[in-house]
Amino acid sequence: MTRLMNNPDNFPVESAEGFLLANKRHVRGLYGGAVRATKTPDGKVALVIGGGTGHYPAFAGWVGHGMADGVVMGNIFSSPSAAQAVSVAKAAERGGGVLIAFGNYAGDVLHFGDAAAQLSAQGIPARAVVTTDDIASADPDETEKRRGIAGWVPIFKATGAAAERGMDLDEVERVFHKANSRTRTLGVAFSGCTLPGDSEPLFTVPEGKMAIGLGVHGEPGIAEVPFGTADEVARVLVEKLLEERPEGSDHRVIALLNGLGTAKYEEMFVTYRAVYKLLEAAGLEIVDGEVGEFATSLDMSGISLTLCWVDDELIDLWNDPVDTPTIRRGTVDAGALRDDIESLSHEPTRITVTEKGSEESRALASNIAASLDTIAAMLRDKAAELGKLDSYAGDGDHGVGMQRGSENAADAARKLVADGAGAGTTLAGAGEAWSATAGGTSGALWGVILNAAGHSMGDSSVPSRQDVVEIVQNVADTLQQVGAAAEGDKTMLDALLPFVRALSSESETSTLAAAWRSASTVAAHAAEKTAELSPKIGRARPLAEKSVGHADPGAVSLAYILAAIGEDLS
Amino acid sequence: MTRLMNNPDNFPVESAEGFLLANKRHVRGLYGGAVRATKTPDGKVALVIGGGTGHYPAFAGWVGHGMADGVVMGNIFSSPSAAQAVSVAKAAERGGGVLIAFGNYAGDVLHFGDAAAQLSAQGIPARAVVTTDDIASADPDETEKRRGIAGWVPIFKATGAAAERGMDLDEVERVFHKANSRTRTLGVAFSGCTLPGDSEPLFTVPEGKMAIGLGVHGEPGIAEVPFGTADEVARVLVEKLLEERPEGSDHRVIALLNGLGTAKYEEMFVTYRAVYKLLEAAGLEIVDGEVGEFATSLDMSGISLTLCWVDDELIDLWNDPVDTPTIRRGTVDAGALRDDIESLSHEPTRITVTEKGSEESRALASNIAASLDTIAAMLRDKAAELGKLDSYAGDGDHGVGMQRGSENAADAARKLVADGAGAGTTLAGAGEAWSATAGGTSGALWGVILNAAGHSMGDSSVPSRQDVVEIVQNVADTLQQVGAAAEGDKTMLDALLPFVRALSSESETSTLAAAWRSASTVAAHAAEKTAELSPKIGRARPLAEKSVGHADPGAVSLAYILAAIGEDLS
Repeated sequence: MTRLMNNPDNFPVESAEGFLLANKRHVRGLYGGAVRATKTPDGKVALVIGGGTGHYPAFAGWVGHGMADGVVMGNIFSSPSAAQAVSVAKAAERGGGVLIAFGNYAGDVLHFGDAAAQLSAQGIPARAVVTTDDIASADPDETEKRRGIAGWVPIFKATGAAAERGMDLDEVERVFHKANSRTRTLGVAFSGCTLPGDSEPLFTVPEGKMAIGLGVHGEPGIAEVPFGTADEVARVLVEKLLEERPEGSDHRVIALLNGLGTAKYEEMFVTYRAVYKLLEAAGLEIVDGEVGEFATSLDMSGISLTLCWVDDELIDLWNDPVDTPTIRRGTVDAGALRDDIESLSHEPTRITVTEKGSEESRALASNIAASLDTIAAMLRDKAAELGKLDSYAGDGDHGVGMQRGSENAADAARKLVADGAGAGTTLAGAGEAWSATAGGTSGALWGVILNAAGHSMGDSSVPSRQDVVEIVQNVADTLQQVGAAAEGDKTMLDALLPFVRALSSESETSTLAAAWRSASTVAAHAAEKTAELSPKIGRARPLAEKSVGHADPGAVSLAYILAAIGEDLS
Repeated sequence: MTRLMNNPDNFPVESAEGFLLANKRHVRGLYGGAVRATKTPDGKVALVIGGGTGHYPAFAGWVGHGMADGVVMGNIFSSPSAAQAVSVAKAAERGGGVLIAFGNYAGDVLHFGDAAAQLSAQGIPARAVVTTDDIASADPDETEKRRGIAGWVPIFKATGAAAERGMDLDEVERVFHKANSRTRTLGVAFSGCTLPGDSEPLFTVPEGKMAIGLGVHGEPGIAEVPFGTADEVARVLVEKLLEERPEGSDHRVIALLNGLGTAKYEEMFVTYRAVYKLLEAAGLEIVDGEVGEFATSLDMSGISLTLCWVDDELIDLWNDPVDTPTIRRGTVDAGALRDDIESLSHEPTRITVTEKGSEESRALASNIAASLDTIAAMLRDKAAELGKLDSYAGDGDHGVGMQRGSENAADAARKLVADGAGAGTTLAGAGEAWSATAGGTSGALWGVILNAAGHSMGDSSVPSRQDVVEIVQNVADTLQQVGAAAEGDKTMLDALLPFVRALSSESETSTLAAAWRSASTVAAHAAEKTAELSPKIGRARPLAEKSVGHADPGAVSLAYILAAIGEDLS
């Protein structure tokens, strides 16, 4: 459990503050995360990394000469927002473009992808790339669906060294993909981690068993097997990793044994001893080995083993000098400290009212703001229920994220209405606030929903019944595109698409309010039915079946929101 | 608990092997521990550090350029032996002498002190010095009795840098004492650690409480108080440390927030944030800060805060380049790798038979060897009981240590008898084996006991009844000298001295066997009565009273051994 905290809501912020105070040699904080404390040369490619909090040294511990230029820091186990990533990237970039690199998690993919698009639109070449080293998270023929875990260390080390050498964005990206394609990780867990403020762990592993391939947020693994000796655990990890030797690899590897939180260093050394001997017996040369805590998962008990199949280029990049809070090697001429951080804009520019809405649109905007207040109050009541639901297959942050996002969205809407905003601007501003303050997958998706609805609605006219149906249809289309999901994948689409169909058909014969309420009932029923589905990414993994029997939290919260809107419609 | 292990008996050895395999850049293993992998200049003072296993990165993680030259690695929570320290020191020394530095624990003091004496006798100037930063472990007027904990980091860093600069032994020792005198640490613990192979923790902290000043082996602290917020915990640590500003200090400190095992990094950062603000509010300048795991205690839940009150010299030494497995900074020209480690003697020379004993002494030696077998069997049976007893005030290793030591002593005796050794040589060889293989306080003391008895006995004659009384008296005198303890301090002396008095008086009127058995009964009774005593070092600490009600394990095991010898006497 988490012993040392103040208000759990402030935990990630206070943790980031403490990190910054302890690491003044290396980092400077700003809105969204931190950048190197030292100046970097003009034209250098900036490597920006990031993700949720709770994995230290990942990611903040890797900012510095030879590795990352900036880190985007999200809430506990929850991706940072696009706005945060843009802020960090703009402070880190030096004219050579930005590579935003991160693990392959839905929220991160949405927010960092959005950030790269925003940066590119502003004339800063930016690319979002994902690490996919966790072999337990999808089958070998679907490596692009795999999650990124502790393989971050060799991948980001190589990429950061490439950028430090002055390679251009294409070359740095090439090195990234090469290192990623040659890195494989497998983890085992013995007990779950506990989120700050919670009294129960996010998940449990049965006594005497170990979960193979369990994710760093408790995502289901590939099997639960009886607990073995350290030698046996090493054998499981090595054998499964050696089944997937990357194409083009030779006999040379870098081995990284990572503790997930509460494994003792001495235990890890005992296990590494066995790993080393097994790799040697397999004819491999361990070019370098690292044993320690690199990518943790709060207080999870477990370890992971990463093998990076190196060639001459990757060995050189691995050995290049580096100087970060937690990884240091060789001679670094760190250079002068930056003195411009204070002057950088720490907060993203928010959507403001450039032109007042029409009278009828402003009246609608006022209703929308009131409805957002209702939704925020409802989600505060449902936060625990949604969090519990999310703990079966996800990371348990859905309730808190929805609450935080809707409250900030309602606040933003109220202010925009006071400034004379029409309905479209009010919705777009609410969506921006939701995404920027909540982060996470749900933050990104609700940002997209409100933004798409706002853009369709505009600030002049009030939509007709038929317009509303089209707007909702348009939102659903956008969401399918952004989320890269389809009906049946156990996502919010499984409630939204039935809703859209029902609304479309009902609205032909009844009032909008009646049609909406009727369609909401369909959505609520469809959300419940998601309990029978498996998440798509989980098809390769038997234990993903654990989420079967529990409804998808995103679908359930969507149904609640649709119902709340229905109540407010007159 | 410990999840990853094979045979718990091999845990420390396998852990050391894994450490060496993972850190070939920095260390080379040899009998007793490890030395730097790189060559060091002739004439350089060698800094040798060490102690029990279970505290990584302490101590092995600090071997390398700019810090330690060698590390002596003991069993779990148990000091290494003098033989191990001599082996490491001889491989590390380069003609400038050796400074052996370690925490102020009884076993370490005995073994490292003995090692320094042995090295000096062999013409290698060597000094044993102790760190005493734990302010909870004795009152301010008895700082020399304090234990050393995470203050090792700034103290060993300064000392290692001094040695690296080429300072001579006097100067390096001066820096050591200066850094030690300016370093203060206080810890808090929330739950106990579990020894490898055990299912129950070594100690517990009541639910909802935290133990202030609890030692890294579970030694009692100064108070148990209700659990507070991170800010409140920070306040307790800072306030108590600031009550003891060292003489000659100014406003500059290095702050080190250390995790004892299972504290999350994020929790530590939240706490460090508060520490930083409190120190700043007290008018202090935090010259540098470190947050992480430096001196752990297996899987103990807790943190400690160290303040080192620096001046210009200590700041410079802190900033000097360093390159060890876990602490790295600045530019290090590591130099060529050593290629002579393989050729170094890995095992200490054992006592051997240079001249056969007289016939009657060899007969006695044979009885002694048989008696040691009886003792070893008895101690195997009693190991759990003695370990439990040791857990109330000590570190729980007494049972295992006594078992390991007596088995090896019996083995050594049997071999010496087979080679024709007399009683004196057999006892001395048994003592040497006990000390070298068991380490720890009990290993050192039983080494002293058997060695002293052997030297008094010699290899020619068989002692008379009066001789035996004198030998026992002589052993008791030696023990008082070495252990620096007195009757009433709750040590084995509380059983031994009443035994000596009873033996002396009884032997005037009865046979040796009868007198011994009668005196053994007195010793057993006296050992039981130690339950009413407090350990001497604990007088300043209210919670040391916890050991009251439980007998001293050293006194109890001595009484068992005396009784076993009595049974064997005819």
